[in-house]
Amino acid sequence: MDRDAFLLTPGPLTTTLRTKLAMLRDWGSWDSDFNNLTAFVREHLLAIVHGQGSHVVVPLQGSGTFSVEAAVATVVPRDGHILVLDNGAYCKRLGKLATLMGRRTTITSHAEDAAVSADELEARLRADPSITHVGLIHCETGTGVLNPLQAIADVCERHGKGLIVDAMSSFGALPIDARRVKFDAVIAASGKCLEGVPGMGFVVIRRAVLDGCAGNSQSLAMDLHDQYVYMEKTGQWRFTPPTHVLAALAEAVKQYDEQGGQPARLARYTDNCQALLTGMSELGFQPFLRPELQAPIIVTFHAPADPRYDFRAFYQAAKARGFLLYPGKLTQIETFRVGCIGAITRREIEQAVFAVATSLRELGVSNGAPAL
Amino acid sequence: MDRDAFLLTPGPLTTTLRTKLAMLRDWGSWDSDFNNLTAFVREHLLAIVHGQGSHVVVPLQGSGTFSVEAAVATVVPRDGHILVLDNGAYCKRLGKLATLMGRRTTITSHAEDAAVSADELEARLRADPSITHVGLIHCETGTGVLNPLQAIADVCERHGKGLIVDAMSSFGALPIDARRVKFDAVIAASGKCLEGVPGMGFVVIRRAVLDGCAGNSQSLAMDLHDQYVYMEKTGQWRFTPPTHVLAALAEAVKQYDEQGGQPARLARYTDNCQALLTGMSELGFQPFLRPELQAPIIVTFHAPADPRYDFRAFYQAAKARGFLLYPGKLTQIETFRVGCIGAITRREIEQAVFAVATSLRELGVSNGAPAL
Repeated sequence: MDRDAFLLTPGPLTTTLRTKLAMLRDWGSWDSDFNNLTAFVREHLLAIVHGQGSHVVVPLQGSGTFSVEAAVATVVPRDGHILVLDNGAYCKRLGKLATLMGRRTTITSHAEDAAVSADELEARLRADPSITHVGLIHCETGTGVLNPLQAIADVCERHGKGLIVDAMSSFGALPIDARRVKFDAVIAASGKCLEGVPGMGFVVIRRAVLDGCAGNSQSLAMDLHDQYVYMEKTGQWRFTPPTHVLAALAEAVKQYDEQGGQPARLARYTDNCQALLTGMSELGFQPFLRPELQAPIIVTFHAPADPRYDFRAFYQAAKARGFLLYPGKLTQIETFRVGCIGAITRREIEQAVFAVATSLRELGVSNGAPAL
Repeated sequence: MDRDAFLLTPGPLTTTLRTKLAMLRDWGSWDSDFNNLTAFVREHLLAIVHGQGSHVVVPLQGSGTFSVEAAVATVVPRDGHILVLDNGAYCKRLGKLATLMGRRTTITSHAEDAAVSADELEARLRADPSITHVGLIHCETGTGVLNPLQAIADVCERHGKGLIVDAMSSFGALPIDARRVKFDAVIAASGKCLEGVPGMGFVVIRRAVLDGCAGNSQSLAMDLHDQYVYMEKTGQWRFTPPTHVLAALAEAVKQYDEQGGQPARLARYTDNCQALLTGMSELGFQPFLRPELQAPIIVTFHAPADPRYDFRAFYQAAKARGFLLYPGKLTQIETFRVGCIGAITRREIEQAVFAVATSLRELGVSNGAPAL
């Protein structure tokens, strides 16, 4: 049957019909109605992290990675030195784009099944005073690890280093309070925990920092300082905005507020995650992470040991039942991932677990227990 | 009344309801259904310029300018030298982004009310053999001038120079035939003459050129070689694609074909442009360009000489009647622009002209005649 599958992925994810219906309108990108929509979204995103007064929100066309690259290009001066705390695939991507654009980049490797360490950061900053900025992934989507944002921010603040946080898969669900966590830039995107559709990112930047960032970026399209200055002056985006995507995000943000904001979103995702862990555990599956490291965003499971298991076949069987799972992103161990985010509740997660159970049966896989 | 205005702008523009309805679905960006959608769009875009065999289409997240920057970053080597033929605002933007990213850039200035000159290009290429690439805007949207693509391409081919064409506001409407026009890259976007919604661009690149472009781009997000290699291998975009925007573009491309493809689109826009020029002329308005330079995409009109004319008030009056006009982009002369593109016909243009007439009356402006 041709019906929408539930997307149990880290985004694009399942959105409400109300959010999608907001796209049934064409907006003039120069018109005041659209400028008002942009201003509305910027204000609401800023309020989510309590950044009023200290920070500003600069939206950017493209996927979240475009905003990550833009944040590094804009905030880290050309002679800066960024230390990337690496415990997964998205950390590596951050390190790679900083290196490519010619910023001096140092990458510290942590295990993929552990959080990055504030103590190690402390030692690194003591050892190398040339470091000017620290790059952190809040929730490493490659595995689902929650990294210790507050502790890392405290170390950076003590040493006077700028902190750039990729909060792609945590923004709006996990608490980030700009009044307590000192950061230069926090980056996220429309199609993640805010439950909009994909197509734009945004960066929450400390205003005092941004004001000094003119000319840092070698990219015109990704220059957030230029985007900001133009937007403050005209209310408009510099280049054609993704009008329908922004309209959907505005509608998603309204629902976010109506549902109770960040605490409510975190509660729903935590409930989803619990339902998932419980249900999958009953089928014999084992999560990759220890519980204290697991963010309620996306869960990595070990592949079953049963030789009849094959991810492609498993994926297709679950898809036929209306649920899209997500492949693993670890190079050493075979895993798969299941997202807890999007416009879904425990009920859909329970149905997803049921679909996993019947999919295993179809494959002739006795249970989900890994080889360990 | 809350109804959609007609967007008489160079994009975002008015799209059909069918195109917008295609966004009422969430797609998994890793799923084969979405990969098929990407492949469908890439093939159709390639066919529009008859590039099968010689070229490939590489889509990119973001606005059209992101794709222009990506094309320059990917196709022009770091030690390359690009000559930009400048007769307007979008030419200047191309020159600026090439300069910013560190490519050696030479800009030749032409008058804004004239096309760029193949003869002058010929002389420039003879005088400076260090030039490796030429950058051209096919239809300069700042004024509406149609530049001589075939003549410029012929000069480039004779001199063995790579040609990069920003065809943002012409692609799909004006003919571009890769079998006769030799180009390295042609750039356009979803929300222009293909009548999709904004949020992604794409570059048609000569495959033999692209194969040698590894490592040219200093930007990870904008590396079209990397995007291409990954897409060929996996069928997927490297980073989260704007799924709903692509779905809308696929639906827009289907309608494009059903309506008769490029010749039919050009015929409709030409008819729109004629209706606009005739109707506005009857109100006393005078177009900025001589007829032989005017592309049937967007028309720049001189502002009326009547001192009661004020663009803001004029814009609001036309908006109240359901039509969004577009401001001028010339620095020396006061103008405004009216787009001929989007899911509109002569009927909507005639209604727009009527709205302009009643708006002038509301402002107390006797007629549209300029000061000249």
